[in-house]
Amino acid sequence: MVSGKRTIQLFLGLMLLGLIVYPCSSADPTGAATLEEKPDAPVNFSWTLMCGFLVMFMQAGFALVETGLTRAKNAANIVMKNLMDFCMGALSYWAVGFAFMFGTATGISGLIIGFDKFFLMGEAYDVSTMELWFFQLVFCATAATIVSGAVAERIKFSAYIIYSVVISAIIYPIYGHWVWGGGWLASSEFMTTLGGGYGALDFAGSGVVHAVGGFMALAGAYLLGSRIGKYKKDGTPVAIPGHSITLAMLGVFILWFGWFGFNAGSTLAATELHISIIAVNTALAGAAGAMMTMFLTWWRFGKPDVSMAGNGVLAGLVAVTAPCAWINPGAAVFIGVIAGVIVYMGVWFLDHRLHIDDPVGAVSVHGFNGIWGLLALGLFADGTYGVYTTQGPMVTGLLYGNAGFFLCQVINSVVVFAWAFGLGLILFWVLKHTIGIRVSREEELQGLDIGEHGTSAYPNFVTTEPAVDGDIA
Amino acid sequence: MVSGKRTIQLFLGLMLLGLIVYPCSSADPTGAATLEEKPDAPVNFSWTLMCGFLVMFMQAGFALVETGLTRAKNAANIVMKNLMDFCMGALSYWAVGFAFMFGTATGISGLIIGFDKFFLMGEAYDVSTMELWFFQLVFCATAATIVSGAVAERIKFSAYIIYSVVISAIIYPIYGHWVWGGGWLASSEFMTTLGGGYGALDFAGSGVVHAVGGFMALAGAYLLGSRIGKYKKDGTPVAIPGHSITLAMLGVFILWFGWFGFNAGSTLAATELHISIIAVNTALAGAAGAMMTMFLTWWRFGKPDVSMAGNGVLAGLVAVTAPCAWINPGAAVFIGVIAGVIVYMGVWFLDHRLHIDDPVGAVSVHGFNGIWGLLALGLFADGTYGVYTTQGPMVTGLLYGNAGFFLCQVINSVVVFAWAFGLGLILFWVLKHTIGIRVSREEELQGLDIGEHGTSAYPNFVTTEPAVDGDIA
Amino acid sequence: MVSGKRTIQLFLGLMLLGLIVYPCSSADPTGAATLEEKPDAPVNFSWTLMCGFLVMFMQAGFALVETGLTRAKNAANIVMKNLMDFCMGALSYWAVGFAFMFGTATGISGLIIGFDKFFLMGEAYDVSTMELWFFQLVFCATAATIVSGAVAERIKFSAYIIYSVVISAIIYPIYGHWVWGGGWLASSEFMTTLGGGYGALDFAGSGVVHAVGGFMALAGAYLLGSRIGKYKKDGTPVAIPGHSITLAMLGVFILWFGWFGFNAGSTLAATELHISIIAVNTALAGAAGAMMTMFLTWWRFGKPDVSMAGNGVLAGLVAVTAPCAWINPGAAVFIGVIAGVIVYMGVWFLDHRLHIDDPVGAVSVHGFNGIWGLLALGLFADGTYGVYTTQGPMVTGLLYGNAGFFLCQVINSVVVFAWAFGLGLILFWVLKHTIGIRVSREEELQGLDIGEHGTSAYPNFVTTEPAVDGDIA
Repeated sequence: MVSGKRTIQLFLGLMLLGLIVYPCSSADPTGAATLEEKPDAPVNFSWTLMCGFLVMFMQAGFALVETGLTRAKNAANIVMKNLMDFCMGALSYWAVGFAFMFGTATGISGLIIGFDKFFLMGEAYDVSTMELWFFQLVFCATAATIVSGAVAERIKFSAYIIYSVVISAIIYPIYGHWVWGGGWLASSEFMTTLGGGYGALDFAGSGVVHAVGGFMALAGAYLLGSRIGKYKKDGTPVAIPGHSITLAMLGVFILWFGWFGFNAGSTLAATELHISIIAVNTALAGAAGAMMTMFLTWWRFGKPDVSMAGNGVLAGLVAVTAPCAWINPGAAVFIGVIAGVIVYMGVWFLDHRLHIDDPVGAVSVHGFNGIWGLLALGLFADGTYGVYTTQGPMVTGLLYGNAGFFLCQVINSVVVFAWAFGLGLILFWVLKHTIGIRVSREEELQGLDIGEHGTSAYPNFVTTEPAVDGDIA
Repeated sequence: MVSGKRTIQLFLGLMLLGLIVYPCSSADPTGAATLEEKPDAPVNFSWTLMCGFLVMFMQAGFALVETGLTRAKNAANIVMKNLMDFCMGALSYWAVGFAFMFGTATGISGLIIGFDKFFLMGEAYDVSTMELWFFQLVFCATAATIVSGAVAERIKFSAYIIYSVVISAIIYPIYGHWVWGGGWLASSEFMTTLGGGYGALDFAGSGVVHAVGGFMALAGAYLLGSRIGKYKKDGTPVAIPGHSITLAMLGVFILWFGWFGFNAGSTLAATELHISIIAVNTALAGAAGAMMTMFLTWWRFGKPDVSMAGNGVLAGLVAVTAPCAWINPGAAVFIGVIAGVIVYMGVWFLDHRLHIDDPVGAVSVHGFNGIWGLLALGLFADGTYGVYTTQGPMVTGLLYGNAGFFLCQVINSVVVFAWAFGLGLILFWVLKHTIGIRVSREEELQGLDIGEHGTSAYPNFVTTEPAVDGDIA
Repeated sequence: MVSGKRTIQLFLGLMLLGLIVYPCSSADPTGAATLEEKPDAPVNFSWTLMCGFLVMFMQAGFALVETGLTRAKNAANIVMKNLMDFCMGALSYWAVGFAFMFGTATGISGLIIGFDKFFLMGEAYDVSTMELWFFQLVFCATAATIVSGAVAERIKFSAYIIYSVVISAIIYPIYGHWVWGGGWLASSEFMTTLGGGYGALDFAGSGVVHAVGGFMALAGAYLLGSRIGKYKKDGTPVAIPGHSITLAMLGVFILWFGWFGFNAGSTLAATELHISIIAVNTALAGAAGAMMTMFLTWWRFGKPDVSMAGNGVLAGLVAVTAPCAWINPGAAVFIGVIAGVIVYMGVWFLDHRLHIDDPVGAVSVHGFNGIWGLLALGLFADGTYGVYTTQGPMVTGLLYGNAGFFLCQVINSVVVFAWAFGLGLILFWVLKHTIGIRVSREEELQGLDIGEHGTSAYPNFVTTEPAVDGDIA
C-alpha cells in the first residue's frame, strides 16, 4: 500500500517535471528537415515502426504462452503481470533506460553507460530519436516479460512490479549499451581488434534481449523456490499441466508473427534488402526447432508433445535472433535443430538435476538458446553481410576462418550470463529480504488471482485441479 | 423474419444496381497515372493500408474485451454482434456513409454534409479514393463496435443490426464530415477565425470515433435499462464478473497493437516522419493510463484490479488519439494519467450515481475520455506540427497561448456529445417503440446465445453462475 | 516410432548437405546490387514481406477456427497439427517445393514443372529470390492447413504429418507452377490464345491455394469416414457443436486481418497502387458473404447462426481471392453474396446428401468457393487492370466480352479439382493401406489429445459432452 502511494507520487512528480522542461523548439520535431536530408526516411520509418508494432504485439504472445502453460487459478495474475511490465517498462525506459542505453557515449565512461536523453528531452525530441526509442522500447519490454513465466504462480505482484522497473530502467539498458549503444563489448579497441574489425555482435538480441531475460528468470526462479507440489520428497518432478494448450499455442503463433518484426525490423531500414534473407532464416529456424522437439519427444515418450513443440519454435527463434542477418538458410535450419535439442535437454536438466521450477521453460528457451544464438553467430557468419549494413567489413565466423570473432562471442556469452544472473540474484535477494517475493502458502494454494487481485479469471466455469501424488514435498 | 427478407432484397437490389452502373473507365483504376504524378504514393499507400489492416484487427480486440468482461452464456452473441457490425458497417459505409462524409462539399450545404461517391461509383473508382475509403471504413467500424459492449447481455440482435447500419450510414459519417470532410467544425469561417487559422481538430478520432461511439453507448445503455441482478433494491450495484479475464486482456493487447495503426496511420502518409512521435505518444499514454488505474485500485481496494488496468490502457489510448500528433511525450504521459483517473471515476459515477449499467465501461473509456482527448489537444498542442501536415500554421493550445483553439475544442466537445447522445436517444427510442430493443426476461436469464442464436459458446464445459445477493431488483 | 527416427535422420542429412554446399559468394546476398538496379525495391520488399507476415499469422486463425468448431477433447491435437503443418511445410518447401514451383522453366518440361533452386542454393541465395520464397511459403502453408479442419477429430497424427510434407513438397507446388510459375495453364500457347493474350489467371490463389486445399480436404474427409456419432442409422446428420465459438470467431477475425496481406500483398509491389482497390474488394466480399449467410440462416431457422456467419466471411474472402485485382467493388459485393449462398448450400449438400463429415466446413469454404472465385474472375474482370501489373493487355471476363478467358477459367477449375481431389484420394488411400489414417474407436471417443499426445488441453476445467440421440450409427 505504502509503496503504491509512493510510487504514484514519484511518477507524477517525474512526469510533471518532464512536462515542464520539454523544450519544444529543439531539433526537428515536424520531420521536415530529416525528410529533406534523407529521402529514404519514409520507407525506413514505416518499416521500422511497423516492425516495432509487431514486436509490441509479442507481449500478447508471451501473456498467452505463460498463462496457457500455468493453472487457471493464476491466469488473471499472469496476464496482469504481462500487461504491467510493458506499461512500467515503457515509463521507465522513457525516464532513464533509453538514456543509459543510447545516451551520448564518449570516452572511457561511454564504453560503460550513456547519460543523456532522459525523458526524451531536448535534442531527443526529434523524429529519428523517437523512432529509435520506440523500436528499442518494445525490445526492452520483451526482455522484461520473459521473466514473468519463470516466476509464475508464486511471485508477489508488488515484487514483480519493482523488478520490471529495475530491469527496464537499469539492467537491460546497461548491457544493451555495451552491445548496441557504443559500449565496450562491441566498440572497445580490445574487442574490435580481437574480432578483426568488429567486436561482439548480436543482430536482433539473442543476448541483449533473450539471454538477459532468460538468466534473470533463472535467478528469480531459483530464489523463489519451486511451486508447492512440484517435486516429490525424493526430488522427482511432478508435471503441473497448464490450463489451456489452445491459448498457449495461439501465443506461440503470435510470438512467431511478431518475431519477423523483431528480426527483420532490426535492420532499422527497408533499404537493407537483406530483410528478405532475415525473414527466411526466421521462418526456417523456428520450423526446424519445432520439428526437432516434436521428433525428440515422439522418440523418447512415444507421443509428440504439444507444448514442447511450441517451445521448440521459440527455441529456434531465440537462437536465430543473433545470427539471422549473417547466415544462410542451411545454417538457420541447423541452428534451429540444435536449438530444439537444447530446449529439450535444458528443460530436463533444470527440472531433474537442478530442481529449479520454471513453469514455462523460459530459462531453456531464452537463456540457454540465447547463448547458443550468440555462439552460432560466431560459428556460422558466412561473410555475406556487413556490420548491421551492406557496407564495411563482412562478418565471418569460426567456420569461415575468423576465430577471433568467435572468441568475442564467447566473451559476450560469459558477460551476459554473469551480468543478468548476477544482478538477478542481487535484485531478487534484496527484494526477498525486504518486501518479500513469495506469496503465502495459503494464497498459492488458493491461487494468486484471488490473493493478489481479488478476482477470478473464469468465474463462469467449473474448475478443478488434477490430483497429484501423495508424497509431495 | 420479415425484416430479414426485406433487408436481403434491399441489399441485393442495391448491389446489382451498383454492379450495372459501375463505370470502369473512370479516373485512374490501374494507378499508373497517380504513380507518375506522385512518386511518393507507394510508400504512403503501403503505410496507410497496412495501418488500416491493423485498425481492422481492432475488431477482434473489441470482441474479446467485450466477451471477456461479460458472462459465458452471452459469449457467442457478443462476438456475433462484433462481426456483424463490421460487415453491415462496411456495406453501409460503401453504399452511403462515405458519400455523406467525404462526398464533394461545396457551399453552405457542404459545411453540413457531402453528397456524391455513393457506392464508390464514377470518379470514386480511383486508387486514391479507394485508399481513403478503406482507411475510413475501419475507423467507422470502430465507432460502431464501441456501443456493443455497453448494450451487451440484453439487447435484441435485430435491433443491434439496425443500429449498426444507421451509425455507419448516417450518424458517424455526418459528424465525421464536420471534422474531417470539410464541414463546419473544422472549416467554417467562424471556427477557423476563432481557432486562429484552423477550427476544431481531431488527429485520429478521440471525438469522431470514440466519443461518437461512447455517447451512443450511453444512450443505448440508458434506454435498455440495467441487466437483471445488476442493482439491489436499494440501488447498490452488484459486480457481475466477466467469464474470461484472459481473453479480455488479450483483447486489450490486440487493441493497443491496432491503435498504433489507428494513430500513426492517420497521417495517411509515411512521408510525414512525425509518425514516430505519434507512435511514442501512443505507447506512453496507454502505459500511463494503466499505471494510474492500477495504483488507484490498489490504493482504494488494497489490490490492483486487472480489468481496470486493461481499461486504463484503453482510456489512455482514447485520450491521446486526438492530440497524438501535436503533443510531446511529457504531455502524453500526463494525458494518460488523467485518463486513468477519468475512467476510474467514470465507471464509479455511472454505476453508483447514475445507475446506468455499462458492462464493459465503454462510456467511460470512449465517451468521457474522448472528450478529455479533445480538450487535452486544446490544452497541450505545443506548436511542433501543423494541421495534419508539417506545413502551414503550427497548432498550439491554451497552455501555449492559443485560447481560441481551446474554445474550438470545447465547442467540438459539446457538439459531439449532443449529436451522439441525442441521435442515440432518438434511434434507440424509436427502435424500442417499434421492434423492441430488449430481449425477454427468460431469454436474458438463460443467456442470449440460446435465445438469439440457438447455440452455446462453450458446450463442452460445465458452466455456472456465481450466486448473487438475495434482494436483487 | 521408426518412421519418426528415419525422418529425423533424413532431415538432418538433407540439412547438413545444404549447409555444406551453400555457395555464399553467389548472386547478391547483401542486396546492394539489387538496390542500385531497382530503386523501388525497398518499398516493394517491405510491402511484400509485411504482407507475408500477415499471411503467416493466418495460421493462428486457421488453428482457432478449427479448434473452436470442434470438441475440447481434441483441441491440443488440432493446434498441434496446425503448428506442425507450417513447420514441416516450411522445411519441405525449402527443400524441394519451391524448386518445383518456381525453378527455371524452359521448353516443354518447363510447362509441367520447375527443377532448380532446391534448398535455395546457388543462384537462389539472393535477396529477390528469398523475398519470393518467403511470400510463397506462407501461401503454401495456407493450402496445407486448410485440410486440417476437414479431417479433424479422427485422423492419425503421423498420417497428417506425412500428408503435410507431401502437399507442401509436391502437390501444391506442381499445380502452383502451372498457374504462377510459367506452367501450361497460364503460359502455354493453347491457353494464351484461348484467353486472348493471357491464359488462366488467379490473382492471389482462390484456385492455387484454396481449391487445392479444399479438394484435398474433400478426399481426406471422404476416405476417413465420418466421426462416431455424426450420422444416425438413417443417415440424418447430427450437429456436433464446437467447444469455443469465441475462439472460432477470433480465428475468423485473424484470418480476415491476414487476408488483406494475402490479397493485396500478391501484387508483390507497393508501386502497384491497385493495392488499395484490392483491399476494398477484400473488405466488401467478406462482409457480403457474412451478411448473406446471416440472413439465410435467419430466414431458414429463425435465428442468425454464428458459426455460419463466420464461414460466410471466409467464403466471401476465398471467392474474391482470385478476382480481387481485376474487379470493381460492386462485383466484389456480388461475389461475396453468392459465396455466402454457396457455403450455406455446400455445407448442407455435403452433410445431408453426400454424408461426408467436414467438421468445420472447409470443403465448402475453400473448395467450392475456390472454384467460384476462379469462375467469377472469368465473368467479372472489367478491363481495369493488366496481367498482375498495370501494364500490358487489360484482363476482361465474359460479361465484358471475353468468352475465351472464361473458358480458360473453366478449364482451370476442372484441372484444379481433378488434380487436388485425385491426388488427395491417392495419397490418403496409400496412407490408409500402409500406416493407417484413422485413430482407433476407443481413442476417438476418449479424444485425440490423450491418444495422440498424452495430454489434455484444459485440465483445470470440468468438461462434458452433450448427449446425442440414441440411434447413432
